[in-house]
Formats: sequence, C-alpha cells, structure tokens
Amino acid sequence: MVSPFSPPQFAPRQSVFQVEEGVELAPKFDADGLLAIVTTDADTGAVLMMGVMNAEALSRSIATGQAHYWSRSRQCLWHKGATSGLIQNIVEMRVDDDQDAIWLRVTVQGSGASCHVGYRSCFYRAVPVGDALTASPSLRFTEAEKCFDPALVYGDAPNPTRL
Amino acid sequence: MVSPFSPPQFAPRQSVFQVEEGVELAPKFDADGLLAIVTTDADTGAVLMMGVMNAEALSRSIATGQAHYWSRSRQCLWHKGATSGLIQNIVEMRVDDDQDAIWLRVTVQGSGASCHVGYRSCFYRAVPVGDALTASPSLRFTEAEKCFDPALVYGDAPNPTRL
Repeated sequence: MVSPFSPPQFAPRQSVFQVEEGVELAPKFDADGLLAIVTTDADTGAVLMMGVMNAEALSRSIATGQAHYWSRSRQCLWHKGATSGLIQNIVEMRVDDDQDAIWLRVTVQGSGASCHVGYRSCFYRAVPVGDALTASPSLRFTEAEKCFDPALVYGDAPNPTRL
Repeated sequence: MVSPFSPPQFAPRQSVFQVEEGVELAPKFDADGLLAIVTTDADTGAVLMMGVMNAEALSRSIATGQAHYWSRSRQCLWHKGATSGLIQNIVEMRVDDDQDAIWLRVTVQGSGASCHVGYRSCFYRAVPVGDALTASPSLRFTEAEKCFDPALVYGDAPNPTRL
C-alpha cells in the first residue's frame, strides 16, 4: 500500500556548469520520465541490479533511505523488498555528471539477494571476452547456488522476464 | 576510423529458462536496439559510468576486450578512449538475468578517468538520503580533484551533457 505523497520539486536545469559542477540535484528524466539506476552491494562493490526510477521513486528513495524503483514490467512504483522482504537500505546515493543516472550503494535485508531468479546479484553469468573468447563461447555461472527459492517467495506471480 | 565489421549472431531468445538459466548469450535489445551498461573499476568496485551498447558495440567489446559503447549524443559507435587515450580494458563482462543489461569490470589506461568532466568516476557527487536529509540538501563532492583537464583533452569538441 503506497501512502499519499507529494514529491519534492527538483531544481530546474539551467546550465551545463550548474548540472555538472553544482550542488543542486537537478535530475534529467528521459522521454518516459525515468532515470537509469545501478545498485551495488555497499560492502563488496558487486553490481546487484540495474533499474529505473521516476520522480516519485527517486523522492521516496531519498526520503526513506530505502530503494524504490519504477517497475517497467508492472508499470507501477516498486518498493524493492515489499514482497520478498529483501529491502535495500541505501548507504550512499550518487548522481552522475549530467544527472540522468543514479548509483545506489545498499545493504540488503534478509538473505541478501536482489535478483528475482534467486541469486544474490542479477549479474550471475560471465561472458568470455578478448583472449578468453573461443569458437563456441558459453556463459559461465559466477554464483554457485541461489540465495532463495523464487517459487516459495513469489508463488505464482508473473515472471518479469520478457522474451 | 572504424574498420569493416560483421557482428556475430547472438542466440535467439526462445524461453525464459534459456534466457535466465542458460549459457547462451541471447541479449534483449530495447526498441532502440540498445542494452544498458554499467562499468565499474575492477580494483575498487567504484561505478565509473553508465552507458548503452548496440549489437555492434557489444560484439566489438567481446572481440577486442576493450569497451565500446553507442554514443546517444553523437549517434555513433564509440570506442571509449579513442580520443582521450583512456581506453577501458575489460577484466570481466557479466550479463544480467533477462539479458538486457551488461556489467563491465575494467581497468582504465592513462590517468584512469572515465568521466568527460575530468573526474575518475561520473558519479562524483553524493545525494543526502534518509537520516542524512536536511531542509536544504546539497550534493557533496566525493572526489577532491579532477584527473585531467577536459579543455586540454577534448579541446572544443561539443560537451555531451544536454539540458
């Protein structure tokens, strides 16, 4: 249940110098009203997931210190962990040079996983590159086992992966 | 100068199980033909930048072991470091669960910077969140000085930041 909410106003974008070198948060939302988000484990530095935020998700993340995203598959505000218990507590939030992307450093409650497939990170497979490349390259799993059983956590909720 | 190039064929996307649990690289390019990319420092884990790749940028990154992106501001293939010398050598490439995002762990040649503003990371400012939030929040710089002078490296090339 999402409570009534008035998102704070962000600063207007007035100059490249202001945006790149200033101390005002003046985010650049894309044509769909979204920012790109990358979320890493505050302790290990591992990338856990990538996602997007709209203005409300950004405002709620700032106000609460817990990661909120915009779910493109469900088209709704997404308080990460509300279903699974795997809340992401924000240790640090960073904004990039032109302010169209956000980096969240988080600690994850519960089993510590952030991936709906059950792994700790969504990035659980390595792609061979350069010298490691062979004629028939295969992805290599970088996590030996899952942190949780998705069937137990999500039940029969639709899988967000789209072909 | 980009040499003639025939991008390899990626696997067709046939099932959620194949995409999430398989060992075939079967990327999901968005409506614009792009994947989301996050690039981190292989040593420190710091997020250096976020970007996008089209199929050719992905293929070239895999084949050469050096990061190639699609430049949305210039609408062209972008061999990162071709102008600045700040080539990103890929230590590891990871793909995410539904294969619409890539994580690059890199080492950066030269001064080690990845940001056109001159900082090491594009994410050189922190946003106060949760308990750290005050009535008039200001971004806090997390890098004390620039790695290079953009004017010397890029000359009068157009700044990619858009308002």
